Formats: sequence, structure tokens, C-alpha cells
Amino acid sequence: MEKLVKVAVDAMGGDHAPGEVVKGAVDAVNEKNNLKVFLVGKAPRIHEELSKYQYKNEQIEVVNAEEEISCDESPVEAIRKKKDSSMVVALKMVKDKTADAFVSAGSSGAILVGGQFVVGRIKGIKRAPLGAVMPTAKGPMLLVDAGANMDAKAEYLLQFAQMGSIYMEDVLGIKNPRVGLVNVGVEEAKGNQLVKETGPLLKKCENINYIGSIEAREIPYGAADVVVCDAFAGNIVLKLEEGLAAVLVSQIKEGMMSTLKSKIGALLAKPALKKTLKKFDASEYGGAPLLGLNGLVVKAHGSSSAKEMKNAIIQCIAFAEEDITQKIKDQIVKG
Amino acid sequence: MEKLVKVAVDAMGGDHAPGEVVKGAVDAVNEKNNLKVFLVGKAPRIHEELSKYQYKNEQIEVVNAEEEISCDESPVEAIRKKKDSSMVVALKMVKDKTADAFVSAGSSGAILVGGQFVVGRIKGIKRAPLGAVMPTAKGPMLLVDAGANMDAKAEYLLQFAQMGSIYMEDVLGIKNPRVGLVNVGVEEAKGNQLVKETGPLLKKCENINYIGSIEAREIPYGAADVVVCDAFAGNIVLKLEEGLAAVLVSQIKEGMMSTLKSKIGALLAKPALKKTLKKFDASEYGGAPLLGLNGLVVKAHGSSSAKEMKNAIIQCIAFAEEDITQKIKDQIVKG
Repeated sequence: MEKLVKVAVDAMGGDHAPGEVVKGAVDAVNEKNNLKVFLVGKAPRIHEELSKYQYKNEQIEVVNAEEEISCDESPVEAIRKKKDSSMVVALKMVKDKTADAFVSAGSSGAILVGGQFVVGRIKGIKRAPLGAVMPTAKGPMLLVDAGANMDAKAEYLLQFAQMGSIYMEDVLGIKNPRVGLVNVGVEEAKGNQLVKETGPLLKKCENINYIGSIEAREIPYGAADVVVCDAFAGNIVLKLEEGLAAVLVSQIKEGMMSTLKSKIGALLAKPALKKTLKKFDASEYGGAPLLGLNGLVVKAHGSSSAKEMKNAIIQCIAFAEEDITQKIKDQIVKG
Repeated sequence: MEKLVKVAVDAMGGDHAPGEVVKGAVDAVNEKNNLKVFLVGKAPRIHEELSKYQYKNEQIEVVNAEEEISCDESPVEAIRKKKDSSMVVALKMVKDKTADAFVSAGSSGAILVGGQFVVGRIKGIKRAPLGAVMPTAKGPMLLVDAGANMDAKAEYLLQFAQMGSIYMEDVLGIKNPRVGLVNVGVEEAKGNQLVKETGPLLKKCENINYIGSIEAREIPYGAADVVVCDAFAGNIVLKLEEGLAAVLVSQIKEGMMSTLKSKIGALLAKPALKKTLKKFDASEYGGAPLLGLNGLVVKAHGSSSAKEMKNAIIQCIAFAEEDITQKIKDQIVKG
């Protein structure tokens, strides 16, 4: 029998909560039989949304939580004080093993803090990085650390590379994923102090497929499957890609709408263009996992639609089925 | 009478040297009367290229140099040992005040090292950053430091912001340029240690228009005119924009060529699209100045065409006319 995977979802987190979150959960359980979703938050609001859809009753359970954590609050204080918030209640379900995974599109800061303090790090894991699955010309890659640990050390980056490799291999199914270290050139002598210390550690690590330094220019081409850097650099990579892609696409649209001739051209080219640009659509890949915790914590984009929430929830199934937490313990902590 | 601006050009540097370099120099002097270019390198090769064009003889002078510095050499050793290289000879002309500025599309490392060691820093300037003029939806911005100083300190970044402001105001003509600090969020408490220390220094600096932290996502939208960060982060911004723009444009082209209908659409939309994408064409803006030296040192892209070389050379005119070096001394070192 297939293992039933249980996901605690913060129904109140995100720009379009609870509407899109609830719809995403319904779509997820309608697609996967071995999935149970706990929708955590204000029960009457959640039931109101749920009443719009058809789904198997035993696959969705509503868990009441009266409080909400907003993006304007101090993450540390919010997690400490709001014990009855949708986020803290859902995170506790992972800690208690009531759920295998947690998904939220709410305050990024609170998710990072809550993951570390409520769920807790695996013993021996020094820092829990945020892994963002991003599109490239060759398919998905994992950027790690995409935003959790500012001022990192080389020994943290080594573990990020190891955990990222396990994730890409077992959750996304990429065999022997290529690990690249973000640098200002491919030569080993280049880079800042952190990179110069990290390179040799990655090189002598036996359970990863380290291909060396990669330049930022090569990232969108898919130069590596696991792209390792500190969170400051990672956040720049993540956010700059988002911003530049949006600006370029809007400029192209504007250009195509500028003359009658180009408008007709746009109409004809649109279906083909849409298909190509879908490859670069990050919403296909679900959320960003916080790696190295005693259970899976996934941060979805704040503006997540139902489709992104669905993908973030479904992504948890492979993580639980492959027992990534145990693999991290076996291969990294003991290894 | 207009001041004559003299530019020493490394004729042997770059992927398309000396052909495109010489052509760029010819195009520059044919466009500007108050410009004299010294083409430094192997004289016979340079004369051979020059013989293809028409130009006023007094505006171009060939200076012989027998050696060349390649991109594979150690920059420090190459600059120290190859005294008769096109790069070192040209840089010395700036040091001796024979020329106001130096332009090269050769080895980036050698340009950075040569600028510091041959031309030398202005007394009181702690580090010389590379300023890259980049396109945004709103027009050009200056990214500083785009790749010169790994492991920077807050006091360096303060001077980068000041020098960048002078450059944008006096060379590119942007009044009261907005200075933004690259960060992982707009809140002051966010960021790595360097950013946390730099923010307050920028805030209390009176001769810049500091608008606070900016997220990488906002950079392509033109959120600031002077975008300040350490060279590791800056190199990521510069290279990732290059890579992602290239990948997206090639994906779009591929999409447009995928069906007959879309091919016809592409044909119709092409002229309008080209015009829009030109806004995002970095070659319009010339090269990247190394700021804070006793003379102007400009790094052009390794793959520079004649057009890029021409723009990089012409950019030197405003720098010399506005006497940026003196302004840096007056406003930053004494200020």
C-alpha cells in the first residue's frame, strides 16, 4: 500500500489566502490519492471556501487556529507570541509528527524562524538553508541558500551542497546532480574569502558531483543542477531573475503592441511564445524547501495562485516518500 | 576652444582585436573633433587596419608596443613583467598625463591590476571599484562595484556611492542621482554584516541622494541610478543579467520559429521588437570605468564590437571635460 503523506497547510498565509490556498489543496488531493491535507486557520473561513469544491472528505481536515502572522511583524516575536496562529499550529503538527510537511505562502521571515525554532534542525546540521527550485534553459535547478542564512561559513555551504544534491536526486529525480559554486570566474583562485574556503571542501566531498565554480552568467543556461552560494548572493540570484524576466517580458509586450503590424504579429506568435515561456515559469516547480529540519517546511511565493499551492503541496509527497530527512541524517551527519 | 581629450587605447585587447578596436577608434574620431586616440600595440598590424579607413591623420597616432597580455596569464605577473605590452604602455601614458584616459577590451584582471598599480589610486581613495553602466527600464544605471574588490568594507562602499554619484551626474548627466544599496529586503535590519554597517554610513553622507536598501528584483526596473554593493554581489548582478537576457531572447526566438504561423508573426513584430530591446542593449553605454584612479581607466567588454569600442572611447570625453578626478578629490577626499 502507498504511504499516506500528510501535509499541514497554513491556510491564512499569502496574498490570496485563504481562497487560492484552499483551492490549491483541493486540486492537490483530487490529483493524488495518497495525500492528506490539514488546512490550518480560521475554520469558518476555510469551510466557506471548501464548500465551493468537490473532494474526498477524508483527504482534507480543517484545523482551527485563531491568530494570523502578518508580513509586517517581527518574525521572531510573532513565532514566539502567537501560539494559536495558523503558522505555529501547522508547524507544531510537523514537530509532533502529526504531519510530514508544512506549506505556507505567508511571511518568509516567520517561516524561516518558525522552521528552525518550532520544527527544529536535524542534529549535526549547522544551518537550514532555503532551497529555491528555479527554471533554466535545461530544466529545473536548486538554488541553495536562496535566502535563509546571511554571513555563512564554508562548512555550512558544504552541507547545503550535500542536502541540495539529495533533494535534486530524490525529489526531482535528477541522477547524480551537478553541484556548482557561484563565483566571479571559473578559476579556483577567484572569489571572495567564503568561496575560496568553500571550493576545496566541495572538491574533497565524496558524496556530491562537484563540477567547480560557475559564473552567474551560466546559471540561466542550466550550468549546474545544485547552485550553491550564501543567502545574500542567493537572494540576489532569485530576485534578479524574477525582476529581469518580468521587465523583459513587459518590454517585449509593449514593443509588440506599438504598431498595427506588430500587433498582428503578436497575435500570430502568441501560442508558440506562451509554450516557450512556460519553461521559464517558476510556478511549475512548487515552493522553496527549507532543508535540514526534522520534517519538511516549504515556503511558497507570497503571491501564490492555487496552481502554485497545489504544486508546493504535491512536491511534499516525494520528499516524504523518499524519506529525505533520514537520508540527510545517514549521508551527511553520520557520513 | 574646446579641450582636446586624449585617449590611449589598447589596440591588442579583446576577442576582436585589433580589427574592431581600430574601427571603433576611427568611428570615434570621425564623430568627435575634440578627440585624439593613441592606438597602442603592434604598429604594422594597426597600420594595416587603419589603411582601410578615412579619418583626420592628426586625430589618430599609433604607439608601438611589442608584447600582448592574454586572459590566461596571472594579471599581477603580466603587468609587472610585460613592460612593453600594449596594456602597460597605454596605462603609462595616462600616468604620465600624455593621455587623459585608457580603454581596453583585454584581460579584466590585468586592467584592474594595471589601473591600480600603473595609474594609481587618488590619495585618500581606499579602493578603486569597477562601475558598470547597465540598462534598466528607466534608462542607464551605474552598478558599483561590478567586480573589482572582493571582501569589501563599509567605508569602501561609502566612497563607491560617492564616486558613482559624481560619475552619473557629470558623465551621464543624471541630476541628483538616486543611490540604492543592494539588500535582501528594504528594511534596515535586513542584510548581511557588510550591508548593516554600510546603510548607516550612506544615510548620514550629505553629498549623495541615498534612497535606502533596494531588492535585486527592483534593479532592472530602474529603482536607483547608482546601485551600490560589494564586487562579489555586483559581479552576480552584472553577469546574471547578461546570461538571463541572452537565454530569454534565444528562447523567444526559438518559440517564434516553432510554427509557420509564429514565423509570420515574428516577421511582422520584428522591427517594433528590435526598437524595444535596444533599450536593454548594454553596448549603447560604452565601457565600465574603474573609479578613483589618477586618470580614467575604462574596461570594455571582451567581445566588444567597433560600436562598443567607439562608445567606450567617446564616454571618456565627458569624464575628462568634467574633470571627474578633480571632483573626486574635492568632494570625497577633502569633503
